[in-house]
Amino acid sequence: MKKKLLITGFIPEYLICSFRDRFDITMPDEEKDRFTLDEVKERIKGQDALFTLYAFKFGKELIEMADSVKVVANGGVGFDNIDVKACTEHGIFVVNTPTSVAEPTAEMTFAIMMAITKGIVMYDRAARANGNTVQPFFFDRDILDYGKTLGIVGFGRIGQALGRKALGIGMNVIYYDPLRKSREEEQRMGVRFAGFDELISTADVVSCHMPYTPESHHTFDRKVFERMKDTAYFINAARGPIVNQEDLIWALKNHKIRGAGLDVYEFEPDIPKELTELENVVLTPHVGSNVIECRKEMLEEALGGTYKLLNGTEIPNIVNKELITGR
Amino acid sequence: MKKKLLITGFIPEYLICSFRDRFDITMPDEEKDRFTLDEVKERIKGQDALFTLYAFKFGKELIEMADSVKVVANGGVGFDNIDVKACTEHGIFVVNTPTSVAEPTAEMTFAIMMAITKGIVMYDRAARANGNTVQPFFFDRDILDYGKTLGIVGFGRIGQALGRKALGIGMNVIYYDPLRKSREEEQRMGVRFAGFDELISTADVVSCHMPYTPESHHTFDRKVFERMKDTAYFINAARGPIVNQEDLIWALKNHKIRGAGLDVYEFEPDIPKELTELENVVLTPHVGSNVIECRKEMLEEALGGTYKLLNGTEIPNIVNKELITGR
Repeated sequence: MKKKLLITGFIPEYLICSFRDRFDITMPDEEKDRFTLDEVKERIKGQDALFTLYAFKFGKELIEMADSVKVVANGGVGFDNIDVKACTEHGIFVVNTPTSVAEPTAEMTFAIMMAITKGIVMYDRAARANGNTVQPFFFDRDILDYGKTLGIVGFGRIGQALGRKALGIGMNVIYYDPLRKSREEEQRMGVRFAGFDELISTADVVSCHMPYTPESHHTFDRKVFERMKDTAYFINAARGPIVNQEDLIWALKNHKIRGAGLDVYEFEPDIPKELTELENVVLTPHVGSNVIECRKEMLEEALGGTYKLLNGTEIPNIVNKELITGR
Repeated sequence: MKKKLLITGFIPEYLICSFRDRFDITMPDEEKDRFTLDEVKERIKGQDALFTLYAFKFGKELIEMADSVKVVANGGVGFDNIDVKACTEHGIFVVNTPTSVAEPTAEMTFAIMMAITKGIVMYDRAARANGNTVQPFFFDRDILDYGKTLGIVGFGRIGQALGRKALGIGMNVIYYDPLRKSREEEQRMGVRFAGFDELISTADVVSCHMPYTPESHHTFDRKVFERMKDTAYFINAARGPIVNQEDLIWALKNHKIRGAGLDVYEFEPDIPKELTELENVVLTPHVGSNVIECRKEMLEEALGGTYKLLNGTEIPNIVNKELITGR
């Protein structure tokens, strides 16, 4: 029997069509693009599941209205937009997409890192503006990644996938994570554990990949940027508020670090004007998993999983697993 | 005893200073940046060696004037700017920089590839113009490199270094080269040989890394682009005239291929306006080896080598080795 599914944003037909036999779907049209909170409230009654796109906030008030909802699937691995505790209390499963986003997000992060360390965006701008290849003998802005050290803060699936790629191009990889891997795993991966302080002060590139929680809020602030090498680059394709954005802009303007590659921002959807006016940054509009192949796999992981769960089959990507144990 | 060295372009003091004990150096100042042919002619008399930067043309006429010159060192691995045959006839050694440029050039090529396949430059432009992260659900322009096939045409040092990096991020690598590697080498490297036709028609990304010679002129033309996948990307960080630029622009405008990443152009220093107006390209101003670490190593390989050679010591990076055999 078809289940009723409410999606908070538009998905093109050729991507969503394969789910129409399993779900009776309500979603905004292309022009509308995404539902507001009020529009979701109007449509939540009677739904079996909700699919949250663009970090749509699924908070207490809405959860209390969502009597019939048994599963909320989040289009992404980070679920800081969802009040998981309230969901658990109301018996709503929270599902995310950890497997499908890991490799693509790591790849996008890696591309952003390469672009800022090699000056690709700056060079492209110069080439288009000048219409020729006349250029200074070198820019002191770009570095050779080969042989340099990448420091990864938060060593989950995405951090590890990024680490593999960095090792693959000849970088050294150190990582910090509250949960340290075993010596054997570290050896197998070819990475070394470092304390947070050691990592930020020795790495040539620092990339953060932890989830956003109250504890990780503003992990990177003025003090941290001051301790980084002034030749180092900072990368964030995880969550904006992990970084004190004002402090990052200060560090970039005052050459405390050499540059930054950013896919996420503290106050999204806003990207502050001060950032867009800087030369030593590469800015992308929160597109970590914005690749067709990935979108397809995310839909399968989120909606295929939701359908199974609604029909009583356990799936690996449940955030609040305590709901199962409690059953 | 100091040798007399003429350099065709300006090199900052902190890079060239370590050679001043070995050479009596003539070069343009920072403002002048590079000598014209006439200015080199005026200064060539009595020089022991010439260091050619920015593909300065060392042709027959100049070679015949260069009585005292025993070595011409080229700042780069590609020496199509030098008439090697005429040099050999005049007993002038030609020296290049194959070792120092391989890894950096491969890395820059790799970064350009990542930037075009992931849409980094396009995203950066959008992020700066819009000042927010609101964006379509996906762009059909970018691809996941993971699991895709890179076809490398010309499998010398740079091609091989690029292949290692591509394998390191999870791509498959096929290569074409007139000189096929042994099965054992292919297996060790994890690459597969393909005929030129198979390579261009099956690869998701095609990158060329052959030297520019009369034979490689316009290897990539309309017919080749027509046979490439319409989802494929073309990368050229080798030499411009390997590609028929007009045909490439035609292929890009008519969506015969999805995009191109270019560091070199057919009629340098010009980058044609038609290219700079395209969205589906990443353009860099011939900066393959434009990294400080690399510039230092290039100077050592070129000038350190030249000094040794002038003092009768053999070095590995001699282009016209027949001069030694003939001694």
